[in-house]
Amino acid sequence: MEVRVAVDAMGGDRAPGEVIAGAREARSEDVVPVLFGPRDVIAPLAPDLEIVDAPQVVGMHEKPADAAREKRDSSLFASCRAVADGNAHVVVSAGNTGAMLAAGLVEIGRLPDVSRPAIAAPIPAMRGPSILIDAGANADARPEHLMQFAHMGTIFAEEIIGLERPNVGLLSIGEEPEKGNLLTLEAHALLEGADLRFVGNTEGRTLLEGETDVVVCDGFTGNVALKTIEGTIRSVLGALRGEIASSTRGKLGGFLIRPAARGLRARLDPETTGGGYLLGLRGLVVIAHGSSSRVAIANATRMAARGVEHGLVEHLAARLPTSRAETRAGVGSGAVGP
Amino acid sequence: MEVRVAVDAMGGDRAPGEVIAGAREARSEDVVPVLFGPRDVIAPLAPDLEIVDAPQVVGMHEKPADAAREKRDSSLFASCRAVADGNAHVVVSAGNTGAMLAAGLVEIGRLPDVSRPAIAAPIPAMRGPSILIDAGANADARPEHLMQFAHMGTIFAEEIIGLERPNVGLLSIGEEPEKGNLLTLEAHALLEGADLRFVGNTEGRTLLEGETDVVVCDGFTGNVALKTIEGTIRSVLGALRGEIASSTRGKLGGFLIRPAARGLRARLDPETTGGGYLLGLRGLVVIAHGSSSRVAIANATRMAARGVEHGLVEHLAARLPTSRAETRAGVGSGAVGP
Repeated sequence: MEVRVAVDAMGGDRAPGEVIAGAREARSEDVVPVLFGPRDVIAPLAPDLEIVDAPQVVGMHEKPADAAREKRDSSLFASCRAVADGNAHVVVSAGNTGAMLAAGLVEIGRLPDVSRPAIAAPIPAMRGPSILIDAGANADARPEHLMQFAHMGTIFAEEIIGLERPNVGLLSIGEEPEKGNLLTLEAHALLEGADLRFVGNTEGRTLLEGETDVVVCDGFTGNVALKTIEGTIRSVLGALRGEIASSTRGKLGGFLIRPAARGLRARLDPETTGGGYLLGLRGLVVIAHGSSSRVAIANATRMAARGVEHGLVEHLAARLPTSRAETRAGVGSGAVGP
Repeated sequence: MEVRVAVDAMGGDRAPGEVIAGAREARSEDVVPVLFGPRDVIAPLAPDLEIVDAPQVVGMHEKPADAAREKRDSSLFASCRAVADGNAHVVVSAGNTGAMLAAGLVEIGRLPDVSRPAIAAPIPAMRGPSILIDAGANADARPEHLMQFAHMGTIFAEEIIGLERPNVGLLSIGEEPEKGNLLTLEAHALLEGADLRFVGNTEGRTLLEGETDVVVCDGFTGNVALKTIEGTIRSVLGALRGEIASSTRGKLGGFLIRPAARGLRARLDPETTGGGYLLGLRGLVVIAHGSSSRVAIANATRMAARGVEHGLVEHLAARLPTSRAETRAGVGSGAVGP
């Protein structure tokens, strides 16, 4: 199957150069990147790739509501629209996450019964990948949203990662059910009653071990946790390099462990994952790091194609419980998080 | 000065054996540990240390409110009472954090104008120690609480760490002021108007770098972030060990870098820090990890003595802005967090 991936060529700190290079790197028999952006800017850089002209650009710090009102002809909105119109199977952007969420809602729309789309981010855990959901789409969430994230994460883990009956943990501050904040205490009660393999609270200290297949939390907590993992990995490996370089003995040792360290670093590098899926829409969206290099964009593009090949959106549409069955009154306002 | 440190001998997963051993290890000319617990249990293990009989024991998962009602004769409550009564200068416990907070409030009481005591935890950041506050006392907090945490953290960083005019960051999900959840958006506005060196939002990815001297957040977010740092450090160093051990070349390299790696591991080990200070009470409380070994207890005991020597409580009492001056109506209800 040939997957057409709409790539927001103007999204991210290193756009358009690195984004275009990454899209080119991901191109294969099965993956066809289509670049969205101002043709006069992009065409000279990508004479070999398909381009759709989208003259406007959404800034990294522009307000999502402003962008939705004034920038419908931007690369970010136009690439989402291409998915809605059937001109592409999936979209990849390293641009403004809030604007991307708004574009997804406005151009693609939510699946029936989904109240809040959420970002499912793979964590490079030691025992194999875990899923953290929500990794940043909803800075404020209600308990029933967390339950829906749990369902979406479970379907994701089964269909994309291939786990059988993945377990679900609620990210909190103690393993006992009575530990947590108001949000997690209420979500814990809901999750216990849901048709999920819920194993209770899980803690930050085991996130990178991968004890839990699907880790559920609000987007604020998830984003803090994910960035803390990334920053800590970088700081620890950097500090180790520094310590090693401070003695001759260490330098020789460092030379000898280089292959081993390189393998680990590559596995833990956020660029290797490439990004997270925005789940809950009628089409598929992959959100890459704002700082993405060509390597990250290439991996995010491949990840996007994989999601299409596995029919991720179709599985979510078919398998998500309806709001009537599981969630409570008051769900479905569909307000966009910041 | 001789500092009398009340040690809750029954607090923590490895009590009383490791706790007593740690207290003994910390004993010096200036540090006098006083053990609290059932005399018949403790005396055989500590014939060489001062003991105050406290027959009850608070379980690690006991509800704080229940403990406050029924366990006033526990090691946990009695050791706090000793501080209030002047029989000890400071208390150390690796026990139930919620019960410890309750005991602090009930037995020692809050400083005037403090609405919520908070845990200030040192982070072993690369550029020298940072302070994370609140690391877990208040799972739910209001914006004005975060501002008070910022003041307490600043005074801590100046008086204990010796930083001059430390900078304060708000832990959030993007550096721009408009990124965050409802709590941080409102807290950001308050912090901007406060007499603090507020540098705006800070992110999880730089926590271990130490760009920010005082990192402010609610206790849920702080606890998740702190445990995520600890778990990630352990996972990364463990994975590196595994990679190195998988080849002969790696094993030789691993042998050569051992001294360098050992230094780094010791610096990053939570046991080296020992614990966090519970700030905002009329007396000083140090809360150690539940899993503390004798090394951690010894370090927490020394940390407790250091806080007394530096007059931490006196500095907080003298320097914290009054609620009238800086906080808004509605503060001061003093409800205990979960």
